[in-house]
Amino acid sequence: MRELPQYVCVDWGLSRLRASLCGFNGSASVVHDKLSGPGISIARHSVKETLFEVIAPWTHRYGPVPILLAGGVGSNIGWRTTPYLACPFRLRDLSGHCTAFNTHSRDIVIVPGLECTNGFGEYDTMRGEELQLLGWLYAEPSRQSGTHLVCLPGTHTKWVLIEDGRVSQFQSAVTGELYGLIRDHSILLAQNGESASISNDNGNAFSRGVAACRQAKGNLSHVLFSARGRILSNALSADDAASYLSGLLIAADVMAALELFRPSATRVSLVGEPALCEHFANALRAFGLESETTDGNSAATQGFSILYRDLYKPQDQSVSA
Amino acid sequence: MRELPQYVCVDWGLSRLRASLCGFNGSASVVHDKLSGPGISIARHSVKETLFEVIAPWTHRYGPVPILLAGGVGSNIGWRTTPYLACPFRLRDLSGHCTAFNTHSRDIVIVPGLECTNGFGEYDTMRGEELQLLGWLYAEPSRQSGTHLVCLPGTHTKWVLIEDGRVSQFQSAVTGELYGLIRDHSILLAQNGESASISNDNGNAFSRGVAACRQAKGNLSHVLFSARGRILSNALSADDAASYLSGLLIAADVMAALELFRPSATRVSLVGEPALCEHFANALRAFGLESETTDGNSAATQGFSILYRDLYKPQDQSVSA
Repeated sequence: MRELPQYVCVDWGLSRLRASLCGFNGSASVVHDKLSGPGISIARHSVKETLFEVIAPWTHRYGPVPILLAGGVGSNIGWRTTPYLACPFRLRDLSGHCTAFNTHSRDIVIVPGLECTNGFGEYDTMRGEELQLLGWLYAEPSRQSGTHLVCLPGTHTKWVLIEDGRVSQFQSAVTGELYGLIRDHSILLAQNGESASISNDNGNAFSRGVAACRQAKGNLSHVLFSARGRILSNALSADDAASYLSGLLIAADVMAALELFRPSATRVSLVGEPALCEHFANALRAFGLESETTDGNSAATQGFSILYRDLYKPQDQSVSA
Repeated sequence: MRELPQYVCVDWGLSRLRASLCGFNGSASVVHDKLSGPGISIARHSVKETLFEVIAPWTHRYGPVPILLAGGVGSNIGWRTTPYLACPFRLRDLSGHCTAFNTHSRDIVIVPGLECTNGFGEYDTMRGEELQLLGWLYAEPSRQSGTHLVCLPGTHTKWVLIEDGRVSQFQSAVTGELYGLIRDHSILLAQNGESASISNDNGNAFSRGVAACRQAKGNLSHVLFSARGRILSNALSADDAASYLSGLLIAADVMAALELFRPSATRVSLVGEPALCEHFANALRAFGLESETTDGNSAATQGFSILYRDLYKPQDQSVSA
């Protein structure tokens, strides 16, 4: 028999809201249903109303079960600011630092983000990834000790060093955002004044991008022009240009990360959207590193499951989503 | 007595048309008037009509004097495709490779661009800068021999190695375009969801950007996140964010260029918009290199003047604009 839904969890970033209706059977969480909605940057003037509207079908059917939230919803443009926690930070302590309050007869729990001084001496932050990291950490006992390099590709890639279950340091890169900006707005990929269309990269354009970036020693602003040069010299079709661009950008990201973290890790754990993780896996392989991929949504669900147990079922000892 | 106008010269790039009405007195050109119009990327479906409309007041008054054109007007989205000339290329030979034709009873001369295989082994191109380089070269006799590193900042920076009056190699970087994309479209500089305004950098935000990029070894996609990190930690005001971003991007451009060209040059000649050149001069100084600046518009006028003499007054020996 399926467990009844007992809580709602919401991964609410700048560009998208992903809500899941979950049950908990004492050792594992089950996702009953999913809904999506607008990102925080769109909903910000009515965050609460937007959320309650999106999940109204569940509220109607199952009543005011607790809502666990992570991501930009805890930022200063979200619902209620939940301060960043300083690194090094032990991920299993996350549930003890959430912002909790009650509204419309239901519990609201917002997960805090993490902050650190990164390898370049810069202030760095994450929100939402810490929850995926919690889920990733407890999916395999072997991850809870030793040193692990985790990469979470996305709008802003996060490279995270985890030592004995603690986030010791991390580093952000704007790879995904640059990709979108250049693909959608730059003249680099334009051919005869028209924008490049996006192909499935039937050729090896991505790999050629990785190789070009490596040849250029990761000097991104210089090697980016090669996309234009290759289109002009017919070495790259407009259809393949976006894949080539992706290769350039992901290689630059990987090269910089390996410069910082290589001594600490010989393989990389990728957590994120599987197709994007595969691009990072290919780039890492070009630099001699193996990787394994965990779906970012599964990791988030697992992370919420652990939080729910910690907050509502502390008598249960083990969770696997 | 002022010479009568004898030709029109047009620097017509992707984003702007700059036309000058010029006279020539046997040794120097005089600019009588200036007009501006839309870039090639806007005018492309009616390039000839757009040009003739912009300069109609001059045609009405002075008749069908020759028109010299440089920039994107010679590209495959311009008026008439003028093939790139391969490097090494002797700049004084430029007039011998122009595309010339007659329409509406007037001479039209289009300056070719240059192409090379750059220091990363990539196909690279310029259109318009070759004319500024010609003007720059003949403004000082000392520039016509020896090795010179010239930097032309703009949408796409061009770093050009000139040896004994020849362009031997050059390298493009997309610094200016990235600056515009990030400033106008990125969430990096946003504060509380609003875009950063542009200040005059009364503080030292530009220099802090240069220093941060240097600390990050030029790893652009990683250090760009520091703009967001510094805003979040109140180390950077939203007003200063654009200057900081400019420092990051220009430093990354300079660092990559010096890696390629430093053995060849101990100082840099900047040719371009003076305020932008000053930013590059400041970044170069941070890396120990002195520079001198030539206004890009003056260099272009001088270049056109040399072309006009070569094509129409070959009996005259020397030109200084």
